[in-house]
Amino acid sequence: MAARDDSLPIALTMGDPAGIGPEIIWKAFASHSQQMKACCVIGNLTQMRRQLDILAPQLPQGIACSEVFHVSDALKLPPGQLAVMNVSPDAEVEMGLVSAAAGRMAADAVTWAAMAALRGEVRAVVTAPLNKKALSLAGVDYPGHTEMLQALAAQHLGISLDELPVRMMLSSPTLRVVLVSIHVSLRQAIEAVTTANVLQTLQITHRSWPTMFGRSPRIWVAGLNPHAGEQGLFGAEEISDIAPAIDKARAQGIDVQGPFPPDTVFMQAHLTTGPSAPDVVLAMYHDQGLIPVKYSGLELGVNQTLGLPFIRTSPDHGTAFDIAGKGQADPSSLLAALTAANFKTPNH
Amino acid sequence: MAARDDSLPIALTMGDPAGIGPEIIWKAFASHSQQMKACCVIGNLTQMRRQLDILAPQLPQGIACSEVFHVSDALKLPPGQLAVMNVSPDAEVEMGLVSAAAGRMAADAVTWAAMAALRGEVRAVVTAPLNKKALSLAGVDYPGHTEMLQALAAQHLGISLDELPVRMMLSSPTLRVVLVSIHVSLRQAIEAVTTANVLQTLQITHRSWPTMFGRSPRIWVAGLNPHAGEQGLFGAEEISDIAPAIDKARAQGIDVQGPFPPDTVFMQAHLTTGPSAPDVVLAMYHDQGLIPVKYSGLELGVNQTLGLPFIRTSPDHGTAFDIAGKGQADPSSLLAALTAANFKTPNH
Repeated sequence: MAARDDSLPIALTMGDPAGIGPEIIWKAFASHSQQMKACCVIGNLTQMRRQLDILAPQLPQGIACSEVFHVSDALKLPPGQLAVMNVSPDAEVEMGLVSAAAGRMAADAVTWAAMAALRGEVRAVVTAPLNKKALSLAGVDYPGHTEMLQALAAQHLGISLDELPVRMMLSSPTLRVVLVSIHVSLRQAIEAVTTANVLQTLQITHRSWPTMFGRSPRIWVAGLNPHAGEQGLFGAEEISDIAPAIDKARAQGIDVQGPFPPDTVFMQAHLTTGPSAPDVVLAMYHDQGLIPVKYSGLELGVNQTLGLPFIRTSPDHGTAFDIAGKGQADPSSLLAALTAANFKTPNH
Repeated sequence: MAARDDSLPIALTMGDPAGIGPEIIWKAFASHSQQMKACCVIGNLTQMRRQLDILAPQLPQGIACSEVFHVSDALKLPPGQLAVMNVSPDAEVEMGLVSAAAGRMAADAVTWAAMAALRGEVRAVVTAPLNKKALSLAGVDYPGHTEMLQALAAQHLGISLDELPVRMMLSSPTLRVVLVSIHVSLRQAIEAVTTANVLQTLQITHRSWPTMFGRSPRIWVAGLNPHAGEQGLFGAEEISDIAPAIDKARAQGIDVQGPFPPDTVFMQAHLTTGPSAPDVVLAMYHDQGLIPVKYSGLELGVNQTLGLPFIRTSPDHGTAFDIAGKGQADPSSLLAALTAANFKTPNH
């Protein structure tokens, strides 16, 4: 990933407009306008205005959106004006319902934001939640943002998906985890625990860190089996695959320790302080990492994609169709995602 | 399990005397003598006295142990006197070292306590930690207490192990989980997720609850795969095995819901309050359940065996050989285990 230009704006995608995306954006802007100064919302202007009208009674007066025609114009707006780049044609959207129209708007926003990032026009992409079924109805078949962004980036770079491996990182205020695999069955996740995949996850994490945090990470690695296999007694993947990956990563200068027993490594990572504390724990499969992160604080969870040629973060929740349009959504996770994307590199 | 007689004493095994077992017993007695009034320590008198001498400088004066020759005599001792039943011959034990001598004492205590419980002489067994390697050196080959107690009970009842299925329950102050399987590889754990095993776990949990808590439990069930398989997209065990087990359990009058996505079910169980809150979450494998319980508070963790014909609890930590004999061990988890074993059934 190229060194980041902190003078560029952040692209904030609207998400599925039938969900809580526009609402949490408005609430975040109302309560933290300074933090959102650099943001340009990518989406549909009519939908953003409609949501502002719905929320007006609970927001401070004087807030409005301004259409911009280049993301950099977002940096020039006066206080109280939220920049919106209109990248989708208008369409009827009913709050709380899955629809092709809403899925199309969500997809347009992600595509536009990713392309802007790939062209170097924004310094990060923050994505509000979308709905997989709505995406699919709109003819865009991806399990989620991560896979869609990977495909867009690989296409832009003219390389295959295999040549642009990405990993999901989940963060709470007390724990960060990177996952070896995500949306596959637990059986397939075990098959994915190979020396190559574990090493690749370590390399991606190590390479991504300096741009995000200004230094190299200290990584702990969870085992796959109970008690990390107890010397091969309950499974051998720790010996055959994970330990060799750690050895190879160390030989490449990566600061990594493990494999540790899965049931205690996350708790220990959380409790350890000072120079020996890890920055992140590498989890062998989706739930191994997500259970402790979500337990430790879902409302401030941040989902981050490592391996892309740009910084991408998102709130760690979905479209919440059940409360969409009711003014009840909580912008905390989005604000945490903006904070993570907005990290200023040292000496900048 | 037979109705419990709360007038009987509780058998508290000494654990491996080279570890922190005797130390946490003395510390618990010193700080919570009222709570330990009904306890009879089962172990070796010399080792218990030796530990008291080591700890004397940090304990209040006037504490001592009294040898008893029947567990019921424990209830008759004056304040400040801890009852000890001497069930092992003396032997040299070096603190912090794995040895056959120490393993033999630990095994003797567990065997004696289990037999007393099976004869109906104690109302519960609380076990201080032992070391698997020391047990094995003493010729007693079990992965842990759970399997040893199951074997002793089955032998006493004259039935096979299959006829006395047991399950491990882990509790923190904010979460309880019961595990479908424990000390097997993750691959084998997936194979153990069958309708029969999940149903059996639900039945054991349901049957065990009234004796422990005076009523039937409300149970939530975690899925096996990410997002509980997302309608079969990431694994089919939820559809083929887990849901059918839940249906069968419901038909038998068990209050159970699920399968729920594993990454959020533990957090939701923790956050849900009032009459819809679950008493316990059924986890499909060791780490799925232990990661959130340990994250939520290891120092007060309690390990409980369900399915035995008596109540059995233990602290959720090991022998901690690295700090044994140094006076640094924390009795909190043992005290939590005693509280769990000491639960008074209503109208008693």
